[in-house]
Amino acid sequence: MYDIIVIGAGPAGLTAALYALRANKKVLIFEKNTYGGQIINAGVIENYPGVKDITGFDFATNLYEQVTALGGEVKIEEVTRIDKDKNVFTKDSEYKAKSIIIATGVQRRKLNLANEDRLVGSGVSYCAICDGGFYKNKVVAVNGGGNTAIEDALYLSGVARKVYLIHRRENFRAEEKYVDELKNKDNVEFVLNSTITSINGNEKLESIDVITNGETRNIAIDGLFIAIGQEPSNEAFEGVIELENGYIKSIDGVHTNVDGIYVAGDTRVKDLRQLTTAVGDGALAASTAIKEG
Amino acid sequence: MYDIIVIGAGPAGLTAALYALRANKKVLIFEKNTYGGQIINAGVIENYPGVKDITGFDFATNLYEQVTALGGEVKIEEVTRIDKDKNVFTKDSEYKAKSIIIATGVQRRKLNLANEDRLVGSGVSYCAICDGGFYKNKVVAVNGGGNTAIEDALYLSGVARKVYLIHRRENFRAEEKYVDELKNKDNVEFVLNSTITSINGNEKLESIDVITNGETRNIAIDGLFIAIGQEPSNEAFEGVIELENGYIKSIDGVHTNVDGIYVAGDTRVKDLRQLTTAVGDGALAASTAIKEG
Repeated sequence: MYDIIVIGAGPAGLTAALYALRANKKVLIFEKNTYGGQIINAGVIENYPGVKDITGFDFATNLYEQVTALGGEVKIEEVTRIDKDKNVFTKDSEYKAKSIIIATGVQRRKLNLANEDRLVGSGVSYCAICDGGFYKNKVVAVNGGGNTAIEDALYLSGVARKVYLIHRRENFRAEEKYVDELKNKDNVEFVLNSTITSINGNEKLESIDVITNGETRNIAIDGLFIAIGQEPSNEAFEGVIELENGYIKSIDGVHTNVDGIYVAGDTRVKDLRQLTTAVGDGALAASTAIKEG
Repeated sequence: MYDIIVIGAGPAGLTAALYALRANKKVLIFEKNTYGGQIINAGVIENYPGVKDITGFDFATNLYEQVTALGGEVKIEEVTRIDKDKNVFTKDSEYKAKSIIIATGVQRRKLNLANEDRLVGSGVSYCAICDGGFYKNKVVAVNGGGNTAIEDALYLSGVARKVYLIHRRENFRAEEKYVDELKNKDNVEFVLNSTITSINGNEKLESIDVITNGETRNIAIDGLFIAIGQEPSNEAFEGVIELENGYIKSIDGVHTNVDGIYVAGDTRVKDLRQLTTAVGDGALAASTAIKEG
């Protein structure tokens, strides 16, 4: 019997574990891939308060070691199901806890083009608020047509010299207010009915090829922000935990609909998915679980 | 005209400034004392995710330098009043912004005994969740009789070998459920109708003197957690911003009752006041202000 089982070893889950372990709780952490979550693939992080710059890998590794140094155990094992009695099932085993903290994060959707993975941190990014600051007075493109893409383009129009907004359709699935605002920006060029067919560059991103109505155009850019969506992976909790578009609905940002089961980080319905807000969530989930446990 | 004026240069305010500056916003930060807020007085911080250990001073200084390196300006000037039109008044001047972020923090109440200030970080603490981890299997005392004191004692009873709970009255101003839970702990000793009269120690805390019904007793302890309350300082916002017991009421954890005026960090009504939650608040306040500005 564990005091707290944490599902997901990204920043939110590991922070929850850190707080729980410091309170002397018996903690088990499940992770289906590797520790660190999305941040482990980030290049240099410059917007984590109190740390001038740190790579995503170093951040994740430091946090992992903070947790394991306190006796935290990270099992690389996928959770397939939980129940309201705080039983946690994996393919081969079953575990029980007094409290569960779900911190399964999200996966960003990729274009699945050549060079995309290789140039992450060297021009290709999935997070404008995280990485936009590196593109002051440079030329960037945003790819996507939803709220995130529009918000990213608006954000980047205040930072970069020029922003291309590339979207495969004519119309946007985004709040009209923000689309209108974006149309009024002098430094934003809309490239509609268009698809990116190639990401080009050796050491760093140099350009993209974009096809519009059969015509291909090469656009030189310093940064490409891919904002075509992200996906939570909360299938294991269906039927037990209340979801909204796959994300976990929270009460007060921390409780789920089941007593003793909490949520933290990107996988909950929330407005801002950042390292800062993930660690805030993790701390709150653990301290709430400890207090109510 | 500034894009964003931040009031308070603690972790929440400086994080808000960091995010706003990275979005190329024109930012001014007011602080009435010195940058860093309460955390600048912390000894070693071991529960900040991704950083194995850092002094409060180094954390605060790094964050301050992150902000000033981006052109952030911190004015050491007390804000005396704001209005709904986002004018900010100090004793001698007046400033205007599109958005205001209030991050004025809290001040912990002190016992005002000799050695109290000197031994902070060497046995004296105002935060059990922050510093409790340093007292595994040691002897500690908690001073206070409200919810915070009871929660601190509960938390510490899971970490320390023995916890004295010292309270000046017979009864507690705390939720009965938690008081009952505490009474059931084997390693908690209640020292009621009692006042701490002396904090003793040279390099580090060694003991306290406690007076009970005229009798003085010396208690050897490794840690003293002072939990006699904390105070926000939001007098400058009275009549404009809705307060609750001096704290700022927030909607969705970030909006105040006035459009374009946001709140972040310890000074808002919230459940957990930690570095992690302060930086999460700061990031959310800035990104919301940018989006809505």
